[in-house]
Amino acid sequence: MNKIITISRQFGSGGRTIGKEVARELGIPCYDAELIEKIAEESGFAKEYIAENAEYKPHGNWFINAFSTSYASGSGYMNNQDYLWNIQRNIILDIAKKESCVIVGRCADYILKDCEDVECLKVFIHADMEKRAERIVSVYGESDVSPEKRLVDKDKRRSAYYRFYTDMTWGVATNYDISLNSGSLGLEKCEKIITDLYKLEM
Amino acid sequence: MNKIITISRQFGSGGRTIGKEVARELGIPCYDAELIEKIAEESGFAKEYIAENAEYKPHGNWFINAFSTSYASGSGYMNNQDYLWNIQRNIILDIAKKESCVIVGRCADYILKDCEDVECLKVFIHADMEKRAERIVSVYGESDVSPEKRLVDKDKRRSAYYRFYTDMTWGVATNYDISLNSGSLGLEKCEKIITDLYKLEM
Repeated sequence: MNKIITISRQFGSGGRTIGKEVARELGIPCYDAELIEKIAEESGFAKEYIAENAEYKPHGNWFINAFSTSYASGSGYMNNQDYLWNIQRNIILDIAKKESCVIVGRCADYILKDCEDVECLKVFIHADMEKRAERIVSVYGESDVSPEKRLVDKDKRRSAYYRFYTDMTWGVATNYDISLNSGSLGLEKCEKIITDLYKLEM
Repeated sequence: MNKIITISRQFGSGGRTIGKEVARELGIPCYDAELIEKIAEESGFAKEYIAENAEYKPHGNWFINAFSTSYASGSGYMNNQDYLWNIQRNIILDIAKKESCVIVGRCADYILKDCEDVECLKVFIHADMEKRAERIVSVYGESDVSPEKRLVDKDKRRSAYYRFYTDMTWGVATNYDISLNSGSLGLEKCEKIITDLYKLEM
């Protein structure tokens, strides 16, 4: 049975880095940017557009956006977001059926929840605002907008996207098998706990 | 510096058992029933009353309860809940300053958050309703009320109590260093993760 580690994470918490390290240590693939590439291939959308819209509620009025563009699908018309959600969902289901791996973000925890023949370890990585602000400045550099404002905006949009498609509250401990504060524990400890669990548990 | 593990837990998640096992493995005391005894000694209240009121919002209208009984204190009059909260808070602060230990429940995570000279590992233990229902029936036995209803009632009152005294939302992953699903991971894995972290991290 394939063993999948899904990593949901607050922006700037280092969740992506943790996912990559865990996958490297376990010798399994990590789907993150690779997922965006697959979605781009299937959908025809640019990778930048997907990175910005396939995990976040868009800027502006979502209600208006939802009706502004529609795509023909098997069952009628869909807006961009729903079209991307469906492609993303199918790609994640295909990957999970194909091989054991780590999947970062993209509501994979929710998408795989009723998937038979797959064993999931659902992880959530978070850190306090101060640690995340330091991290995004060191990883992504400075910008005109303060790091705190960038974090609040990203969290808000990611949380709204998650709630819209899963009807669940993002970041509530009970949604996950394990939630880790990478700010207080450090990235290495988080990686070790997840790797050990995968080896022991699954 | 004293190292304190605080364990917040959903009712029926086995958090108390995990706390005791971790403490035993690490050779440090676990404060749970012992805390109720200390509060009883200091306050003069019966242990049963404390078990029911020093961690849960009481049944009925709390607003009315809050004004129904008052106790003279140094700074004026307090209701039972606030009186117990103050005693509980002081006892937890004293314990933390005295020795490394595990403290189960009673908002210890919040009470110790600004405490200098103490290193805290804040743990939250949860499990899904089905697993918790099984557990409370096997540990506490059947009652006239269904296990699911007992769980919802306890969770609601514990959560209301936590919010009232800490102004934070109970069970949100970001409040803790680590949150574990004892239902999916099993109690032993939870104990191992916490014990290893204590040895490695703190």
